[in-house]
Amino acid sequence: MDIEKLKDFFKNDLFAADSGIKIVEAGEGYCKTELEITPRHLNAAGVVQGGALFTLADLAFAVASNSRGQLALGVNTNMTFLKSRSKGKVYATATEAAKPGRLGAYDVRITDEQDDTIAVFSGMVYRKDVELNF
Amino acid sequence: MDIEKLKDFFKNDLFAADSGIKIVEAGEGYCKTELEITPRHLNAAGVVQGGALFTLADLAFAVASNSRGQLALGVNTNMTFLKSRSKGKVYATATEAAKPGRLGAYDVRITDEQDDTIAVFSGMVYRKDVELNF
Amino acid sequence: MDIEKLKDFFKNDLFAADSGIKIVEAGEGYCKTELEITPRHLNAAGVVQGGALFTLADLAFAVASNSRGQLALGVNTNMTFLKSRSKGKVYATATEAAKPGRLGAYDVRITDEQDDTIAVFSGMVYRKDVELNF
Amino acid sequence: MDIEKLKDFFKNDLFAADSGIKIVEAGEGYCKTELEITPRHLNAAGVVQGGALFTLADLAFAVASNSRGQLALGVNTNMTFLKSRSKGKVYATATEAAKPGRLGAYDVRITDEQDDTIAVFSGMVYRKDVELNF
Repeated sequence: MDIEKLKDFFKNDLFAADSGIKIVEAGEGYCKTELEITPRHLNAAGVVQGGALFTLADLAFAVASNSRGQLALGVNTNMTFLKSRSKGKVYATATEAAKPGRLGAYDVRITDEQDDTIAVFSGMVYRKDVELNF
Repeated sequence: MDIEKLKDFFKNDLFAADSGIKIVEAGEGYCKTELEITPRHLNAAGVVQGGALFTLADLAFAVASNSRGQLALGVNTNMTFLKSRSKGKVYATATEAAKPGRLGAYDVRITDEQDDTIAVFSGMVYRKDVELNF
Repeated sequence: MDIEKLKDFFKNDLFAADSGIKIVEAGEGYCKTELEITPRHLNAAGVVQGGALFTLADLAFAVASNSRGQLALGVNTNMTFLKSRSKGKVYATATEAAKPGRLGAYDVRITDEQDDTIAVFSGMVYRKDVELNF
Repeated sequence: MDIEKLKDFFKNDLFAADSGIKIVEAGEGYCKTELEITPRHLNAAGVVQGGALFTLADLAFAVASNSRGQLALGVNTNMTFLKSRSKGKVYATATEAAKPGRLGAYDVRITDEQDDTIAVFSGMVYRKDVELNF
């Protein structure tokens, strides 16, 4: 697995890219993404929309879970929203919650610039018998 | 509660609007939203990004849970992805899973144009002592 | 699928049986279970323990998801606790949230004797290529 | 907060105690519980029932979330089942996923005697304005 090629592949995530979400770094079983909150990321209450934070976390989850060389499909996600933010940068950091297997579990922590956790996300993947040739 | 005013308020959800998501209809404890999938909604695998479907479901959840006249904050969401889609319209329909109280639970079904369920979403709200003057 | 045989098979769920949980009725994609709360089901705060309600819901989920004749493994569950109870009967009713496929989603409603929803449960299964010969 | 008194209080969790679940250790924002799997913990397929693992995790979650001196109510739980076990000891270790606040998030890892993660659990609490006098 060439992590740079994996990152390049995920640059084709048009929805994440269009939402202003970038991959900061990635490694085996790991990925960190970032988003700078701008007015278009806000909801009707003037705070960052849950879907923007979800997309931020989901991209980190997708990269981390596909970094082991086998196609991983995200099948379930759970997200708890603890604090709201309306500006500044936010980050999502995905790590493995268990050794990778047919089923995989990932923790994603969403933090602000002060490293306060503003949301947590748990993602589950099902791995298919498809090798990723990166 | 004037449902038209509630819908107008949620037109200020800039992230949902910017993502092409619209409210189709709403009522007490109920909301249906829609999204027409275009290339910018796709992920790196060429299917609709989980974050786009999440945002679709989240808007329906927010409208339905705030339709009772009291401010409802979404604090937890769970989403299961069953099938992928790369074109056509998709819909999210939110209904109450329990009588509204301090805590509220909502079911959201995400369907395609053939009314096949492609994802399911459960949302939980915490209600604050704030009246919504719609 | 002979539903009576399916119910008989699930009588071998020793943990559920030992916890006083019974199958009330079952059908294709459906199951209702019941539990009469007694002191041994209570937690340190004197209300029914979350694990007792989870087990009640999980049995309904297992029966409903295996009623289609193919082995279904529960891989993810989400549960929201809305109200507490310390006595009386409680019920869990599992239904299909989507047409059965390789992945399946089930809704389980946990109610009291007044049919108030006290908790909601979402379960996801992965189906294996194993036929159930009931 | 006297952690020994907190542990004593949770010995009154009759459902957990009756299920053979014990607190191994606890501290601020932390708790580890254990269960020795015996035949009565098995489901109809002969592996440990999800409800037994849930109860194991839920007790660790309850102790960890109440260790800060303020009453914490578990309102949402998410659990992913990765591997099945039919004998031996299993453990649940709860830690804080975010600094404690009105809303709290906890990660619980369920492991076997080889320290393999067999399930993961995310729990969310809502804190009430009630001090715990331990």
